[in-house]
Amino acid sequence: MKRMQTVIGVIGVADASDEEQKIAEQVGREIALGDAILVCGGLGGVMEAACRGAKSAGGITIGIIPGFEKSDANPYVDIPIVTGMSHGRNIIVVRSSHAIVAVGGSYGTLSEIAFALKLGIPVIGINTWEVSSEIKKVATPKEAVELAFTIARHRI
Amino acid sequence: MKRMQTVIGVIGVADASDEEQKIAEQVGREIALGDAILVCGGLGGVMEAACRGAKSAGGITIGIIPGFEKSDANPYVDIPIVTGMSHGRNIIVVRSSHAIVAVGGSYGTLSEIAFALKLGIPVIGINTWEVSSEIKKVATPKEAVELAFTIARHRI
Amino acid sequence: MKRMQTVIGVIGVADASDEEQKIAEQVGREIALGDAILVCGGLGGVMEAACRGAKSAGGITIGIIPGFEKSDANPYVDIPIVTGMSHGRNIIVVRSSHAIVAVGGSYGTLSEIAFALKLGIPVIGINTWEVSSEIKKVATPKEAVELAFTIARHRI
Amino acid sequence: MKRMQTVIGVIGVADASDEEQKIAEQVGREIALGDAILVCGGLGGVMEAACRGAKSAGGITIGIIPGFEKSDANPYVDIPIVTGMSHGRNIIVVRSSHAIVAVGGSYGTLSEIAFALKLGIPVIGINTWEVSSEIKKVATPKEAVELAFTIARHRI
Repeated sequence: MKRMQTVIGVIGVADASDEEQKIAEQVGREIALGDAILVCGGLGGVMEAACRGAKSAGGITIGIIPGFEKSDANPYVDIPIVTGMSHGRNIIVVRSSHAIVAVGGSYGTLSEIAFALKLGIPVIGINTWEVSSEIKKVATPKEAVELAFTIARHRI
Repeated sequence: MKRMQTVIGVIGVADASDEEQKIAEQVGREIALGDAILVCGGLGGVMEAACRGAKSAGGITIGIIPGFEKSDANPYVDIPIVTGMSHGRNIIVVRSSHAIVAVGGSYGTLSEIAFALKLGIPVIGINTWEVSSEIKKVATPKEAVELAFTIARHRI
Repeated sequence: MKRMQTVIGVIGVADASDEEQKIAEQVGREIALGDAILVCGGLGGVMEAACRGAKSAGGITIGIIPGFEKSDANPYVDIPIVTGMSHGRNIIVVRSSHAIVAVGGSYGTLSEIAFALKLGIPVIGINTWEVSSEIKKVATPKEAVELAFTIARHRI
Repeated sequence: MKRMQTVIGVIGVADASDEEQKIAEQVGREIALGDAILVCGGLGGVMEAACRGAKSAGGITIGIIPGFEKSDANPYVDIPIVTGMSHGRNIIVVRSSHAIVAVGGSYGTLSEIAFALKLGIPVIGINTWEVSSEIKKVATPKEAVELAFTIARHRI
C-alpha cells in the first residue's frame, strides 16, 4: 500500500433513491480506479453503493461506524472504524478525507458539508445541498471524482 | 435549582457583527428572564453576547468548550464543560438543548442547525441559514425566545 | 451564580454497593456544602447517590450523559449534558473537573482515573483503583472533599 | 482485500524505550505476517515501531489520529483517520480492534486498557499495567500476536 494515498470521502443518505445509489456506485468505482481510498459513514444507501462500486474495481473502503459493532458496516466496507459516537462520527469522516463527494443528502449530509466547508476540505456535489458557492457542482460521477482528484492532489 | 429546567441553546459565530451581538445579548437576556438555562459553545461573538445577556438577568450559562481549558470560556460562562473535541463538540450543544436559537451564523452554525434538524430539536432562526422550512424564522429576540419556550415546553 | 466556581467530579460505578452509595452521597453533600458544582456521568449508583447528596445540601449537579436523552439522567441531575458518545463521554467528565473524587469503581472508573492522571487533574480515591501513587487515598468523604477543595483551589 | 479481516490494535506510549520499540516492531511484524490489519493511535514510540514492523512485512496500518492533520501520523501509517478529539480518540482505537496488544504503557495506555476491559475486547500485555486478571500476560511478541489471533478469530 502506498503511503499517503489520496483519500476521498463519499457522503449521502442511508435511504437513497435508486438513482442516487447508481450515481454513488459509479463514484465509488471511479475512486477505486483512480487508486484512492474511499472513506464513508459505513452504513447503507449512498454509503453502501459507493463501497460496492469501489470493491467492484478492487479498491479499499473504510467505514466510520456510528454504532458499537463492526457488523453494523455494510458488506462492502473493508475496514470498519468503530466510534460509538453516533452522528458525532460525521466530523471524522470529513477530517479523514482529502476531498468529499456528496451525492444527494439530507440533514446528516448537510452537517458533513458544513464541517467540510468550515475546515477547508473541498466538497464536490451531485444533486446535493446548495448552501455555498464553495461547493463544486458537477453532473456526473466521473466529473465528480476527476475534480476530487485534481483538488485532493494539491492537498497531499 | 429546579429539576429539568428548560434548556435553550444559542448558536452563532465567534466573529459576529455588532448587530448580531446586540440580538444575541437580548436573546440571552430573554432566556434568563424566562427562567431557562442557556447552553452555547462557550466562546466569543454570539456566544459571549448571549451569555452576557443571560447574566444581566441573573441566568445560568453553560459553555460546551471545544478546547482543553476552562479558561477558554468567555467571561459570562458559569459552567464550562470541557470537551477537547474541537468542532466535534457542536453536536453536544445541540443534543443538550430543548430548542435552539440561531443568530446569523457561518459553517459551524450550519453544522449545528443540520444536527438539530436531524435529531428533531427545534430551531428558531434570526437572519440565519435558510436550509429548511422546519427552521422557524422570526424577526426579534423576544419572538425567538417566546417561540423557543413554547416549543421546548412540549419537549420536557 | 459565581463565575468559575470550583467544579468537583465524582466517579464510580452504576451498580454500586450500599456502602459505596452511602459514601458517594456524603461526598456529594460535602461538595455542595463547600459551594462547588458537582459533575458526574449522570447515571445511577455512585453518580446518583452523589447527586442526591449534593441536592440535599442545595448544590448544583451536572450529568454528562452517554446516551441520547436528558431523561437518561438520574433524578438528582440539574443539568444533563447529552453527548450521544457512550463511554466516549468519560473524558469530558474528567476535563470539566478541577479535581475528581473516585468512590470504588470498575473499568469505566479506571478509564476516567487514567485520563485524569494523564491530564494532570488531581484524583482523590476512596476504596478505588491503586494504579498510581499520584492518587490521594483517603478514608472518609469529608477528608476526600476537603482535599479536593484544597487542591482544586490551586487550579482556579 | 478480504472483508472483515482480523484487526489487532497495538497500544503503548509515544516516548517508548528502545526495548519497548523493539518489542512493538516485532508485534507489528507478526500482525502483518498473520494477515491482520494493525490499528493504533498513529503517533510515535510504540505506535510508530509497531507500524514500521507491520510495513516491513507488507501489512496494512491504520492510525487513529488525535489531532487535526493527516501529517501528524507516523511515516508508517497507511491510512490516517483524523479525529480532532485528542485523547478522546483512545476509545475508537479500542472499539475498532478484535483484540489489543499492550506494550508497556503509561496513563493513556491505561485508559485504553480500561475501555477494552469495559467493552469486553481482549487485551494481551507485554510488561504493561497489571490491573486485571483478564489481561493475558505474555513474554514475547510472537506469543502476544498468536494469542491475539486465537482470541480475535472467535470474535469475527
